[in-house]
Amino acid sequence: MSLQRPNILRMRGYSFGEQPSSKLVTKLNTNENPYPPSPQVAEALASIDTSILNRYPNPVANAFRETAACLHDLHVDNIIPTNGGDELLRLIVTTYVDPTETLATTAPAYSLYPVLAATQNCNFVEIPLTTSWNLPENLGSLLNKNKVKAFFLINPHAPTGQLFSSEQIERVASEFDGLLVIDEAYVDFVDPIQQHNCVPLIDRHENLIILRTMSKGYSLAGLRFGYGLACADLIAPLANKTRDSYNTDSIAQILATAALKSKAYSEGTWQKIRQSRQRLALGLQNLGISCSSSEANFLLCTVDHPIQINAQTLYEKLKKENIFVRYFEEPLLQNKIRITVGSDDENKRLLSLMRTLIDP
Amino acid sequence: MSLQRPNILRMRGYSFGEQPSSKLVTKLNTNENPYPPSPQVAEALASIDTSILNRYPNPVANAFRETAACLHDLHVDNIIPTNGGDELLRLIVTTYVDPTETLATTAPAYSLYPVLAATQNCNFVEIPLTTSWNLPENLGSLLNKNKVKAFFLINPHAPTGQLFSSEQIERVASEFDGLLVIDEAYVDFVDPIQQHNCVPLIDRHENLIILRTMSKGYSLAGLRFGYGLACADLIAPLANKTRDSYNTDSIAQILATAALKSKAYSEGTWQKIRQSRQRLALGLQNLGISCSSSEANFLLCTVDHPIQINAQTLYEKLKKENIFVRYFEEPLLQNKIRITVGSDDENKRLLSLMRTLIDP
Repeated sequence: MSLQRPNILRMRGYSFGEQPSSKLVTKLNTNENPYPPSPQVAEALASIDTSILNRYPNPVANAFRETAACLHDLHVDNIIPTNGGDELLRLIVTTYVDPTETLATTAPAYSLYPVLAATQNCNFVEIPLTTSWNLPENLGSLLNKNKVKAFFLINPHAPTGQLFSSEQIERVASEFDGLLVIDEAYVDFVDPIQQHNCVPLIDRHENLIILRTMSKGYSLAGLRFGYGLACADLIAPLANKTRDSYNTDSIAQILATAALKSKAYSEGTWQKIRQSRQRLALGLQNLGISCSSSEANFLLCTVDHPIQINAQTLYEKLKKENIFVRYFEEPLLQNKIRITVGSDDENKRLLSLMRTLIDP
Repeated sequence: MSLQRPNILRMRGYSFGEQPSSKLVTKLNTNENPYPPSPQVAEALASIDTSILNRYPNPVANAFRETAACLHDLHVDNIIPTNGGDELLRLIVTTYVDPTETLATTAPAYSLYPVLAATQNCNFVEIPLTTSWNLPENLGSLLNKNKVKAFFLINPHAPTGQLFSSEQIERVASEFDGLLVIDEAYVDFVDPIQQHNCVPLIDRHENLIILRTMSKGYSLAGLRFGYGLACADLIAPLANKTRDSYNTDSIAQILATAALKSKAYSEGTWQKIRQSRQRLALGLQNLGISCSSSEANFLLCTVDHPIQINAQTLYEKLKKENIFVRYFEEPLLQNKIRITVGSDDENKRLLSLMRTLIDP
């Protein structure tokens, strides 16, 4: 007889995108930034003396919190650093969603969310996006009607790349009685022309938490560093009660702080990625593949008429040739693949291989 | 009205030992190794190119698991790497202890355990050690009678330093119907003459998990790296269902692997610490302070007749002079302080200051 809790015995874990170790692979499947982190991260790493490592890290990553507070024009009490953004999502469920309550998100969304709900043994509800990947008009009241305790919304949305405006977000925050979690993992890739900024909303809405990660925009997926932004009352129990006592390590704290301090370098990579995104979308369109309009560093592509090959087969054939993209076995995404925007060289390699696969 | 779950609203977080940033402090309060990590850790750090950090880490820390498997003569499926040993403890509760069930430990024990129970909203039971800090004779049946689902036992025990033999551990594993978790955070400091080794027990007991950490023995508290050892069936749900998808980062994986591979260096520090432990105990005894016999890198000291000053005041006066030790506000530990064994210089400084405080 298994010793596992019944809900854990029943559940399946998160299926993450493949992480091949081979350098021969063109990796366009897990939305990493194709460029290395800022040179100041390398400098910070080179300056670390391992003789500091015998001591525990600063328990609350103070230097990072101060840097982030300055960057976002907030107070340190509005910020909680976490071991990757995923830790923040888990902490939010642990702290705010009782097993008798309901966690909700959109359909489609990040496939980790139902895993977190299953682990906590709480209810899980999916609210379908509209046919044009938009939020339902009456989202706030829909959530209240479903007695939702916390709603996770990715913005820009994954896997569609759709950006919901800060006005839309604020309306949901106002109407929704529960906790609104905006997962801004991809917000760094939004075109500055949009002047998109949800951070000021946390001052006006005591039910709003924003997630940020250093994994995508700052090229630090390997480091595991994210953070949450919210009013101090929402941050306090995460920081003082439910997180592991030393959740981020000394080296990660130093490198993440260096990355934030040299944000200008990363902004340069975001601009390059936006330009590549446009070129890649055009190249795909020329092959007869349409992409949804994306403000993230990936494109959701529809593999449909006049393309003869189906999405899953295309994904598999690309993989066989060492180009990894993402295919989701989900009802709404059966004829789609998600492609991370790589460097121009990587994108060209993909397009040229796709051409041969689609029109052999 | 707070959005927190009722159990989270009620609970208090973990009170960790102070982590002063000042270099003037003699830090003998949180059981760190006074020596830096192995030179091979420094070499490994120097060889890291930050351009690898834009990619996600190996999800299961394979290189580390292989090294640990080799070291312990186990299979990789017997090993789960975690973000510090504390993450493993939390994962065990999340995976194996339902809110309707009971987590138990000894009294006294590591004060994080009740926090983990409160977070999971499960019952928490404390089994008092005997007056000589031993395990109760009938521990297994006592746990079964209390319907305990998981029992956390630190060995060598904290804060007493007491070592329970592998025969005692095996007897509890045999008699207890629930999950036995042996927290071996301090096992590296056990005198080799004891020939103490519980690892082979995991082959014979499907209800036994052993926790190891790189924080103490390997001088890597700042890195956050621990691991669990158990039969594959106990490890699998922790590794595949409940842990955060990328729970350890690329740099930590590389450095922790380097530390295990150069274990001989750390063994040298363990020997020095054992020798210092003996000298420190003798020095304290000369001041009229008795210490319980310890196989860990700390001493639990009784501040009692003929000492005029009480334990809490002694702790506070030492702190005022920049020497940090640990005082626990707990019934069984009212007249005690716990002192981490430091370098010989640090121990001498402590003894000389204590002499002036005790006999002014």
